[in-house]
Amino acid sequence: MIRIGILGYGNLGKGVESAILQNPDLELTAVFTRRDPDSVQVQTPGVKVLPDKALTEMQSEIDVLVLCGGSATDLPVQTPQYAAMYNVVDSFDTHARIPEHFAAVDAAAKKAGKTAIISCGWDPGMFSLNRLYANCILPEGHDYTFWGKGVSQGHSDAVRRIPGVKDCRQYTIPAPEALDEVRSGFNPELSTRQKHTRECFVVAQEGADTAAIEHEIKTMPNYFADYDTTVHFITEEEMKRDHSGLPHGGCVIRTGNTGMNKENSHVIEYSLKLDSNPEFTGSVIAAYARAAYRMNNEGLNGAKTVFDIAPAYLSAKSGEELRAHLL
Amino acid sequence: MIRIGILGYGNLGKGVESAILQNPDLELTAVFTRRDPDSVQVQTPGVKVLPDKALTEMQSEIDVLVLCGGSATDLPVQTPQYAAMYNVVDSFDTHARIPEHFAAVDAAAKKAGKTAIISCGWDPGMFSLNRLYANCILPEGHDYTFWGKGVSQGHSDAVRRIPGVKDCRQYTIPAPEALDEVRSGFNPELSTRQKHTRECFVVAQEGADTAAIEHEIKTMPNYFADYDTTVHFITEEEMKRDHSGLPHGGCVIRTGNTGMNKENSHVIEYSLKLDSNPEFTGSVIAAYARAAYRMNNEGLNGAKTVFDIAPAYLSAKSGEELRAHLL
Repeated sequence: MIRIGILGYGNLGKGVESAILQNPDLELTAVFTRRDPDSVQVQTPGVKVLPDKALTEMQSEIDVLVLCGGSATDLPVQTPQYAAMYNVVDSFDTHARIPEHFAAVDAAAKKAGKTAIISCGWDPGMFSLNRLYANCILPEGHDYTFWGKGVSQGHSDAVRRIPGVKDCRQYTIPAPEALDEVRSGFNPELSTRQKHTRECFVVAQEGADTAAIEHEIKTMPNYFADYDTTVHFITEEEMKRDHSGLPHGGCVIRTGNTGMNKENSHVIEYSLKLDSNPEFTGSVIAAYARAAYRMNNEGLNGAKTVFDIAPAYLSAKSGEELRAHLL
Repeated sequence: MIRIGILGYGNLGKGVESAILQNPDLELTAVFTRRDPDSVQVQTPGVKVLPDKALTEMQSEIDVLVLCGGSATDLPVQTPQYAAMYNVVDSFDTHARIPEHFAAVDAAAKKAGKTAIISCGWDPGMFSLNRLYANCILPEGHDYTFWGKGVSQGHSDAVRRIPGVKDCRQYTIPAPEALDEVRSGFNPELSTRQKHTRECFVVAQEGADTAAIEHEIKTMPNYFADYDTTVHFITEEEMKRDHSGLPHGGCVIRTGNTGMNKENSHVIEYSLKLDSNPEFTGSVIAAYARAAYRMNNEGLNGAKTVFDIAPAYLSAKSGEELRAHLL
């Protein structure tokens, strides 16, 4: 059994917890939290909830520690800190800061002889893998990534910060015309506005100026100004009834040409349709936690990304079984 | 520069040749053939055509030998034979015999300190990889593989062996209803007949009994009897005009559930739409030839499949570049 610890028990932590139950060779040892442990109720019977400080002395009980904090402020500190003590997996997703995060984690993990997998999930993660494979197969081509239809937590939060807004759920939606054009292999140049639209469901505070809120959303720089955005005002009951899930998904497409005269075109597409973003991400992380454990047993330590990990490490099955049944 | 040799100059050999030209770090050293070398005209200026016997003494000039023979009789002999002398890549695709092929190649390659990648292409190959990743992420789920729309060489050949048939092109076509049902996440149980239909374009010899040919096709065991098959008789001119390409493709779909009560469902789909099956397969092989060379330089020898190869080995770019641009 591979003994897993989870640090941080939000949506992602819960997603990792339920994924562990689907993998017979993984077991959840404990959930660690910065909150009062008594205030945290986990879903798996018999699993301890401990303060994060307990991690200073749990090395003999945990094989892989999964870090479920946020990328903005938690993981840049936590991942190097805990990679000095444990094999770890995180889902650091600030694309622009991955190089420095990798360097910090690599130094800590190498010094301690631990294996640390960063930026694991679906984007970065499975989408990155598919970008890499497709780029290597079709060196002359174009990459497209579409997200959605799904809930963007960052955009929902941005709207919630507008005065007069009580709650918001923001859906990112790929434009069907853009998707069709890309899938046809036409290699279109697409603007931000052409690729995605945004749809906001907003609960306004009583007496709030909804026209002003709508204007503020639609003109918000970075988040909405470059998109066609639709805003719906709904009641708290409607929010709870119709928008309590966290669906997401999207696709990575690469189109390219081969042949002595580049006469043949090809389309490679990887797509995800997810009822629960955090549970799917947690499921990817659970498979990579197995990889971290196995790679560490083979002396493969330091920071790793999905690019550095042979696919067979993700599976509990032997090479013989995989070749016989999945190849 | 990684110096590549190609053994066997049919459709696949030509596909590998054109792929090499799209990869600046790969160069084609020579094409080897069992035919009279003077009868073989390659497309790349300056590339030698040599008899296969010359391979006994080309070790200092070739880094990776790509084996483009057939799976039925060529590769079971050639891959172990040449893995004892070269790093090799083959596209062995007789799924049921992969375990014994792997064992024979592994023994030869390990003894010689060479790296031998077998069963490389899209199925087996990229489809296998996607089956593995999806199975590891969603342990509780269902796998579906659809092929087409595309030309099946094996089925075309089977029809050509019927007396009175001059030429045939057979298309495998996924049933749209089956695809829709799978993509909806319903986990349907589908029979062979429900998943694919088959369409044959046949040139009959003058005076042949076309009704008898059609009957023989539709009732042919293994190849057609379990499918709904349509047969069209066409002229040689129509065959040449409308069916000279070798398009193919298909998709691998895994649907599965997560959550404490398996309440959330997910769909992972990988799909290919290929104008040229041999050129795409050749492009996959070219990327894995790079991997074979690099892994051998790191002392990773023996037989490997796509499952055993970290994705970063396929790319000419450094880890830093990949993390900065594709993760």
